Amino acid sequence: MNANDLQVFNTHESEVRSYVRGFPTVFQKAKGYILTDMDNKEYIDFFSGAGALNYGHNDDNMKKKLIEYIEADGVTHSLDMATKAKGEFLKKFHEIILQPRNMNYKVMFPGPTGTNTVESALKIARKATGRTNIVSFTKGFHGMTIGALAVTGNKAKRKGAGIPLSHTITMPFDDYTGDPSSSLQYIEKVLDDSGSGAELPAAFILETVQGEGGLNVASNEWLQGIEKICRDRDILLIIDDIQAGVGRTGTFFSFEPAGIKPDIICLSKSIGGYGTPLALTLIDPKYDVFSPGEHNGTFRGNNLAFVTATEALNYWKDDTLSKNVQEKSKRIEEFLENIVKKYPKIKGTRRGRGFMQGIASDVEGFSNLVTEKCFELGLIMETAGTDDEVFKLFPPINIDDQGLEKGLAIIEKAVEAAAKEKNLV
Amino acid sequence: MNANDLQVFNTHESEVRSYVRGFPTVFQKAKGYILTDMDNKEYIDFFSGAGALNYGHNDDNMKKKLIEYIEADGVTHSLDMATKAKGEFLKKFHEIILQPRNMNYKVMFPGPTGTNTVESALKIARKATGRTNIVSFTKGFHGMTIGALAVTGNKAKRKGAGIPLSHTITMPFDDYTGDPSSSLQYIEKVLDDSGSGAELPAAFILETVQGEGGLNVASNEWLQGIEKICRDRDILLIIDDIQAGVGRTGTFFSFEPAGIKPDIICLSKSIGGYGTPLALTLIDPKYDVFSPGEHNGTFRGNNLAFVTATEALNYWKDDTLSKNVQEKSKRIEEFLENIVKKYPKIKGTRRGRGFMQGIASDVEGFSNLVTEKCFELGLIMETAGTDDEVFKLFPPINIDDQGLEKGLAIIEKAVEAAAKEKNLV
Amino acid sequence: MNANDLQVFNTHESEVRSYVRGFPTVFQKAKGYILTDMDNKEYIDFFSGAGALNYGHNDDNMKKKLIEYIEADGVTHSLDMATKAKGEFLKKFHEIILQPRNMNYKVMFPGPTGTNTVESALKIARKATGRTNIVSFTKGFHGMTIGALAVTGNKAKRKGAGIPLSHTITMPFDDYTGDPSSSLQYIEKVLDDSGSGAELPAAFILETVQGEGGLNVASNEWLQGIEKICRDRDILLIIDDIQAGVGRTGTFFSFEPAGIKPDIICLSKSIGGYGTPLALTLIDPKYDVFSPGEHNGTFRGNNLAFVTATEALNYWKDDTLSKNVQEKSKRIEEFLENIVKKYPKIKGTRRGRGFMQGIASDVEGFSNLVTEKCFELGLIMETAGTDDEVFKLFPPINIDDQGLEKGLAIIEKAVEAAAKEKNLV
Amino acid sequence: MNANDLQVFNTHESEVRSYVRGFPTVFQKAKGYILTDMDNKEYIDFFSGAGALNYGHNDDNMKKKLIEYIEADGVTHSLDMATKAKGEFLKKFHEIILQPRNMNYKVMFPGPTGTNTVESALKIARKATGRTNIVSFTKGFHGMTIGALAVTGNKAKRKGAGIPLSHTITMPFDDYTGDPSSSLQYIEKVLDDSGSGAELPAAFILETVQGEGGLNVASNEWLQGIEKICRDRDILLIIDDIQAGVGRTGTFFSFEPAGIKPDIICLSKSIGGYGTPLALTLIDPKYDVFSPGEHNGTFRGNNLAFVTATEALNYWKDDTLSKNVQEKSKRIEEFLENIVKKYPKIKGTRRGRGFMQGIASDVEGFSNLVTEKCFELGLIMETAGTDDEVFKLFPPINIDDQGLEKGLAIIEKAVEAAAKEKNLV
Repeated sequence: MNANDLQVFNTHESEVRSYVRGFPTVFQKAKGYILTDMDNKEYIDFFSGAGALNYGHNDDNMKKKLIEYIEADGVTHSLDMATKAKGEFLKKFHEIILQPRNMNYKVMFPGPTGTNTVESALKIARKATGRTNIVSFTKGFHGMTIGALAVTGNKAKRKGAGIPLSHTITMPFDDYTGDPSSSLQYIEKVLDDSGSGAELPAAFILETVQGEGGLNVASNEWLQGIEKICRDRDILLIIDDIQAGVGRTGTFFSFEPAGIKPDIICLSKSIGGYGTPLALTLIDPKYDVFSPGEHNGTFRGNNLAFVTATEALNYWKDDTLSKNVQEKSKRIEEFLENIVKKYPKIKGTRRGRGFMQGIASDVEGFSNLVTEKCFELGLIMETAGTDDEVFKLFPPINIDDQGLEKGLAIIEKAVEAAAKEKNLV
Repeated sequence: MNANDLQVFNTHESEVRSYVRGFPTVFQKAKGYILTDMDNKEYIDFFSGAGALNYGHNDDNMKKKLIEYIEADGVTHSLDMATKAKGEFLKKFHEIILQPRNMNYKVMFPGPTGTNTVESALKIARKATGRTNIVSFTKGFHGMTIGALAVTGNKAKRKGAGIPLSHTITMPFDDYTGDPSSSLQYIEKVLDDSGSGAELPAAFILETVQGEGGLNVASNEWLQGIEKICRDRDILLIIDDIQAGVGRTGTFFSFEPAGIKPDIICLSKSIGGYGTPLALTLIDPKYDVFSPGEHNGTFRGNNLAFVTATEALNYWKDDTLSKNVQEKSKRIEEFLENIVKKYPKIKGTRRGRGFMQGIASDVEGFSNLVTEKCFELGLIMETAGTDDEVFKLFPPINIDDQGLEKGLAIIEKAVEAAAKEKNLV
Repeated sequence: MNANDLQVFNTHESEVRSYVRGFPTVFQKAKGYILTDMDNKEYIDFFSGAGALNYGHNDDNMKKKLIEYIEADGVTHSLDMATKAKGEFLKKFHEIILQPRNMNYKVMFPGPTGTNTVESALKIARKATGRTNIVSFTKGFHGMTIGALAVTGNKAKRKGAGIPLSHTITMPFDDYTGDPSSSLQYIEKVLDDSGSGAELPAAFILETVQGEGGLNVASNEWLQGIEKICRDRDILLIIDDIQAGVGRTGTFFSFEPAGIKPDIICLSKSIGGYGTPLALTLIDPKYDVFSPGEHNGTFRGNNLAFVTATEALNYWKDDTLSKNVQEKSKRIEEFLENIVKKYPKIKGTRRGRGFMQGIASDVEGFSNLVTEKCFELGLIMETAGTDDEVFKLFPPINIDDQGLEKGLAIIEKAVEAAAKEKNLV
Repeated sequence: MNANDLQVFNTHESEVRSYVRGFPTVFQKAKGYILTDMDNKEYIDFFSGAGALNYGHNDDNMKKKLIEYIEADGVTHSLDMATKAKGEFLKKFHEIILQPRNMNYKVMFPGPTGTNTVESALKIARKATGRTNIVSFTKGFHGMTIGALAVTGNKAKRKGAGIPLSHTITMPFDDYTGDPSSSLQYIEKVLDDSGSGAELPAAFILETVQGEGGLNVASNEWLQGIEKICRDRDILLIIDDIQAGVGRTGTFFSFEPAGIKPDIICLSKSIGGYGTPLALTLIDPKYDVFSPGEHNGTFRGNNLAFVTATEALNYWKDDTLSKNVQEKSKRIEEFLENIVKKYPKIKGTRRGRGFMQGIASDVEGFSNLVTEKCFELGLIMETAGTDDEVFKLFPPINIDDQGLEKGLAIIEKAVEAAAKEKNLV
């Protein structure tokens, strides 16, 4: 293959391909926060595999364990048979993540993708309650298979289903209606009103920070309000922590600062640690009501991912990583607030929290232009929001100061260039 | 972890776990057709990861390439960005698989699971035709997410959805009604009759050999009849070749002997070669109608799987493997026919073709008992059929004579023991 | 209004108007089997209000009672309050219809239309069983509201829903697949097969003679087979006797010759006797599980219809009317068989039984042409079948010999004229 | 039948019967605002057949025309053939109702019930727009067949469907969220937000005063806002004027004071004038897109209702009736406000407008008790609201002063008695 020649992709791959259009080069290597293309051009990665590479690319410790495992002919693929690698992950996940947080969730391994853990969560909630409806939220994003898509807000994606999506009720997220208390009151009223037309749902499903939906943050108070609404009506609370979880916001689970206890938690993306496909559905034991094999799938036992995931858990043995994220988040916040102030004409608003922050610009096409300029300048970053109105900083959460500052500097240049091009300075 | 101690699984894993109940030991290593548990007990693998390990465990060539790639810090996770590893796979897949068969499908990489390629196929068919219904077949199995589950026949799995499954019409598979021509006539009549209540569907989806459904084989004539029904009415024909494809029946695609040309082909399981999660949706270019990103997913770019999948394609450079499967299939067929004759009281019928054959027993619980006995005797094999009425031989397709014979000998002993226990001799 | 001027209809009425296009004149009076238009042209009525006028127009006894009731200021409209007129109907319906047939159905008065009794029947069946699916049959017709339309086979009408119609399974009616026993076997297999994809339904709904669907007759054996299939699986059997009931086939209920006992019976059309809107849902007491008002509607208490319906029951005090229908049915049968023989090129087949017979012609447009010719010659008759392939004789069931013969003579002339025009003689 | 003996109803009628439980006597005669039972006890009717008897019982002019028509053997039942009676109604409806209001709606005659006109309206909207969803409103009530039930808010009624109700989005009615402008803003935001999960709907359907839902009044400003939202997005506006129309609020159509122009209007109940079943769907000509017979039904041509409906239109030749309603409405309003003030412990709020007013009491069971007391004292009145929290005054709109005052006096006594019994004085 010639260096950076996209012809093979253009010729043989489906039109559905997407990121390759925004980042039109051929990558060959990666390490930490650096991606390298066929011409050995390096790119700072502020994309992190859409949240699947929180620890950066090819972390050395995980890499070592992975190679050792493969060399020793460890079981690679095992469905849901017991393997040494899986047992070790289960044990360590319990010890390092669940036990210290006083959690006793049962761990389910659905197929190794985000949409699959969401589908399994919805099934459990429906089975456990005998109800059919799920409450989802404006701007929520949960996956592309029909069950998960039905709880996803993005209308263009929904249209792709080709069938009407049913058994869901969309509700206003946090301050969607202006203030969070009005959202909570509205939800409560509609649920309790015997004439509202909205049947009692099996569950609520939500992200605490909506990644794809535009970095909308749920406040702790709103989350607590939602939890109370669920508890008071025996509705299950499902937190989709696929993108916001595994440290992205500074704690392992994104909802820890809110002090809530979801009935079901969906994890995927960075749980594998190394970009290796893995997904978990954490289930309160009282709702662990599946029959054996009632939800199954071929790649539930991706042992290469168990190995890297187990090693990745070492990041959570103490609070070093957490503190790193929390501190650097402030730097990102200041940086973004500064841009908003410096370029008033981009009509920007800072969005998000932790290592999932960005700027929503009301100028059409501006955020896309920023990411284009970044790519030219050697940084990978994507947009979010259903109209791509947000440019979204997603650095690895273990990035060092130098990497972060280099990245921010590029973004600053890109914003300046984009603003000039759009006559916004 | 203590050797073969299942406690960590029993304590921490969800009740949904399934195969571990049938094969209650802890596996640590695997090579070719051998799985080894913590006590170093070896098991012959006639299960092949439910069809995901057609080339056996940890194939040496793939292993070498995989380790080299990881050592060189090749990109591990890339969503649908272009990478060297992906480009090489696309090129080689085209050269070795598509071109020689005069196929010009576009390749889509959905999330790396079977259910995900099925979901993407259904979306395309609905978008391309503007219709909502899909015709699926009795005993068909296509996955566990809501879209794929709606075209799956298994009622217990369907019930797990927790919602009514819609937008599908179930039709009789091949000789379900007694003879294949009556199935075709019925389907044709219902489609053409303006009063039948069955709207013109977007697509038919089917497996040529129903793996989970009990090893029911579609004849070439019936497949050709189905293709004609679709062509005459502008209905898309989707072949789900997830389990029967990648050589399992002796040709790369299971439908090659029938000479049909599906509009969409779903591949997963063994396409990754090494048990590494991967799925492809092959789309006739005229139906490649997705918008960029209209169906997406985090783990579409599992480069470790691209590397092993590319290496695995070497098996298809000539017809050595194909011939091996075709020859050994006869041996399996004879072996099974012999058992059916020798043990008339088990009321057995041989089912399937190629390396997906087995015996359906009308004696309740018999097939399950055979697989239990096999496990005790050191062989892993699963049952199929919605009532587990079939024991299903799924050896790696590159197994040697010695391995095959060892396995068959164990099965013979297991059948004998089971028959005795059930007083069927 | 000018005589027979259709302008007011063309100008002010919706394009949905239908029969007025086939019978383009303005009717003013009617008596027995005669309709009279504004020019005092008389038409023999072999249409009978699509089965709502089994006793002909403006029966003198009913007319007398109706006028007396109105003159005395009897309650006209009462929802489901108790009225004298309603009480008298209930009592007499029990005495004359139910008791002599050893039936003890509870009587429900839904809104006064066929589709409404069907909707109420489906609700009961779903509530009583806790299941969602309903089995309906090819060519079946049950109404135009969404619940009833979902169990109707006509694809053009279904498309009119504007939404996918769900929660139903279409099955082959009687000899749809060639022979009735194969239909029964197929239904049974699909229901019992745990992998067929067809969930156990709440109920079957069917007509014993499909009126709109083309006068397809269910044999007694098939009906008994269907009843047994239902009984063996606790599926409710709903007979929609809206068009075939109230004497149209020679017995009050159309299914009496088959000796089956439906769990729910839908009646409407001629139950009011005088063309006055009324519908009944007869419910086996063990399934009378509605809460008060769970299905309601404004015009459940159409007392003018109670008055005429009560009077109409006198026709069933003895078997005079039944015998009349049975005898004259033979005459109609001979007449139609003769036409089929005499005009082989019309490719006709006699269809139906009792006073719902006709000829299905395989020559496109022929049956429509016959009804046009009939109209010109002074007889009203409609077509049936989803492609209007059947011309359908629907005389009042109390017609005298003279009326019947006059009508048949016109039909004979119309067939001759149509055959000539189409070069089929 | 013995006087007032309910045995025949208790024995033979389904448990679904409802009003007879609240008004446990047997009515035989009725005139104007008086109902008379078998013991010749008279009841003042403040129920008006749930809005189907706006002109009272057995109006003399209509009665005369009806008897004349029957005596002359006018056509009783005609489906959608042209009849003299139907033509006269169409002409007069155009001249007296539509033309003076600058309306040019096409008139569709669906089956003669409210739910049927609603079902036809939803079909048209879906066909005309090619969209599937309908926006309905909290507390809305539109009928009991599946299509209409899906847009009805009452959860108990919805549950009666036995299937999940789909293709609808429930939105807050007028001041449901506290103030009407916040309702409009929320609706607008959800519709326009590409990530809200709420697809662009085919239509909005609503009542201007929610009769069953508890006499909630939409303000003119809110209605105008809703109309604008629809216009700006090519969404059809359907006004269900089945209960609030035909003069009940003082104008023929309830929405006249708001100055809005619905695309589709549903009429039934009092449009027949005499309690005779009839329903109209008024369709803006540009949406008159049905094919002939695409929505049909047996009792579309209820000529007895055409005759009474035509006569009833005379009430609208001048504004006498309108003014009567408007004046007496003030009397009712004062009366109710006075009760609210006089009995603060009943926690009452006056609701509604025109001749559909009542009091919502926050004391559980109070409103039901008032209607019970009324019945004992010789007045028929029902409750409304999903929890029966409103007692609802629905006198005939042509009632005279004496009748109104008699009725109000009884209600006053009933309130007093109920308040005493509940210790609320």
